[in-house]
Amino acid sequence: MVPSREIRLKSRPTGALSAANFDLATVQVPEPGAGEVQVRNHWMSVDPYMRPRMNDVKSYVPPYEVGKPLDGGAVGEVIASRDPKFAKGDLVQSGLGWREVFNAPASTLRKLETRGLPPQTFLGVAGMPGLTAYVGLMKIAALRPNDVVFVSGAAGAVGQVACQIAKIKGHKVIGSAGGPEKVAWLKEIGVDEVIDYKAEKSIRQALARAAPDGIDVFFDNVGAEHLEAALAMSKTFARFVLCGAISQYDTAEQPAGVRNMAVMVPRRLRLEGFIVLDHADQNQPFFRDMTEWLTSGRIKWQETVEVGLENAPTALMNLFKGANLGKMLVKLA
Amino acid sequence: MVPSREIRLKSRPTGALSAANFDLATVQVPEPGAGEVQVRNHWMSVDPYMRPRMNDVKSYVPPYEVGKPLDGGAVGEVIASRDPKFAKGDLVQSGLGWREVFNAPASTLRKLETRGLPPQTFLGVAGMPGLTAYVGLMKIAALRPNDVVFVSGAAGAVGQVACQIAKIKGHKVIGSAGGPEKVAWLKEIGVDEVIDYKAEKSIRQALARAAPDGIDVFFDNVGAEHLEAALAMSKTFARFVLCGAISQYDTAEQPAGVRNMAVMVPRRLRLEGFIVLDHADQNQPFFRDMTEWLTSGRIKWQETVEVGLENAPTALMNLFKGANLGKMLVKLA
Repeated sequence: MVPSREIRLKSRPTGALSAANFDLATVQVPEPGAGEVQVRNHWMSVDPYMRPRMNDVKSYVPPYEVGKPLDGGAVGEVIASRDPKFAKGDLVQSGLGWREVFNAPASTLRKLETRGLPPQTFLGVAGMPGLTAYVGLMKIAALRPNDVVFVSGAAGAVGQVACQIAKIKGHKVIGSAGGPEKVAWLKEIGVDEVIDYKAEKSIRQALARAAPDGIDVFFDNVGAEHLEAALAMSKTFARFVLCGAISQYDTAEQPAGVRNMAVMVPRRLRLEGFIVLDHADQNQPFFRDMTEWLTSGRIKWQETVEVGLENAPTALMNLFKGANLGKMLVKLA
Repeated sequence: MVPSREIRLKSRPTGALSAANFDLATVQVPEPGAGEVQVRNHWMSVDPYMRPRMNDVKSYVPPYEVGKPLDGGAVGEVIASRDPKFAKGDLVQSGLGWREVFNAPASTLRKLETRGLPPQTFLGVAGMPGLTAYVGLMKIAALRPNDVVFVSGAAGAVGQVACQIAKIKGHKVIGSAGGPEKVAWLKEIGVDEVIDYKAEKSIRQALARAAPDGIDVFFDNVGAEHLEAALAMSKTFARFVLCGAISQYDTAEQPAGVRNMAVMVPRRLRLEGFIVLDHADQNQPFFRDMTEWLTSGRIKWQETVEVGLENAPTALMNLFKGANLGKMLVKLA
């Protein structure tokens, strides 16, 4: 028996998350059974999509269950193995975050080859968020020469990668983020025009100054007013890649609404929502390109780390306050 | 010299059109010059897109000019020709509606072969509105087996064709229109479920009853509340073909806004605005299919006719009141 702590969903939030929605419980993990591996998590991912999963709504992933531990991306170390494919000390990726130690069938784990990168990058720039940025720009938007690219949530886990991929591909990039620290980071990674949306009265007007001739691609992580501004400043045949709408996840209020959808007809716009899980065909090209970009230093990243499982709920709540620069992570061991 | 009357834009409307925005003028049309043809219009088209063209806004067609005649699709008869390709009595299509008689270079006219159809159908079901419905469903939505198709403005010039093409292709079709006469017409042409949006408190709830399992394709001519309802009832991977937003053309008020755009991400929706002019590749397949459907009686149509050029402004104003069943036309001679 190994003691482990886990975070459970205590109650479904109505509106903004609070500590009362979470439970910290201690369990005893038995020896792994035949074909199972025992893992101690080192890092867990904290992602915007986790918030809608707390609601009792059918979606592309089932909702979290009240009284049960949450889950999500994690990187850990094998501490016991009853499967020949894994040995003690192996680093593994799993979908069993929000807990310290677990047993799982070997088939549900992926051995992590870090290729010299810090292991937690495989929850960020080299993992799902990086792949999301890659799929959104390379496949959904299908970047074309001279596209002007606007990224909202530009200093987040996905946004920071989207900005840099678009720069590598030679585009003018406008990024929106909240606060001077994020603005400075985006300038450091070469974003051409940075909008501090918290300091602007009108995102639309700020975007008009940043991209006076309009935008060809919008990579949206935020929704609502950002989407309305991007529609207003769209060029003919612009493509909008809708990746997330974080402004709307942690609230019970319905957003004000996007009032200028009618421009989509005369401008022939295309808006497309996507989920990275549908695009496994991009795994290999992403792996190849991102390895090169990271090892050559062409792509940089930021991460914001909370330490200790007990602080994971705070990390998630902070995500919706925009407190993270880059990828939000919890360090568990 | 031949006397002719024409409708000019007297002033740009601010909000809903009124008679004061139009001028009826009489001009003398000289003999046609070399290479020119003189035409007397028999029919002119009245289309929703004409309203935004009255605003001073850059779009895919230049705005109408104050003091100049309006223009638009028309069918007429050659009354004099100084080009060997046209003879007196030929029926021709042109972009020079809103006037009775005109001279134009032969190259700007298209000889009309009616193939036994009434000539005005080439302004409707067999012309641009029919092609618009065809392009939207066959190319933009790219109908797939078992798609449930929702059409707004279903009893209009484009909508009535979209409903029938979707039925011919074997789909369940839900149509929305305003008033019992339109509802009866849509039932007559085989629409499976008809929503009288004027009689419903909530389009969303009416759509939920009509398509309890959701919709795969939305062909939108209306925008605003219809779009919000369709988003609410969209199935995963649904495709929205945005053809028009007539609810928003004849008003200075900004619409309430579409509040549920965030569903686009988890449901992986695609929304695409289009303009039929971009899709000349569909002319031949449309011509082939529509000729067959019309001559076999598989596609029926309605038209609403005002008589006399002086009533063309009324016809246009009535379009935004939903007074037309099917294609809105003005009979000139």
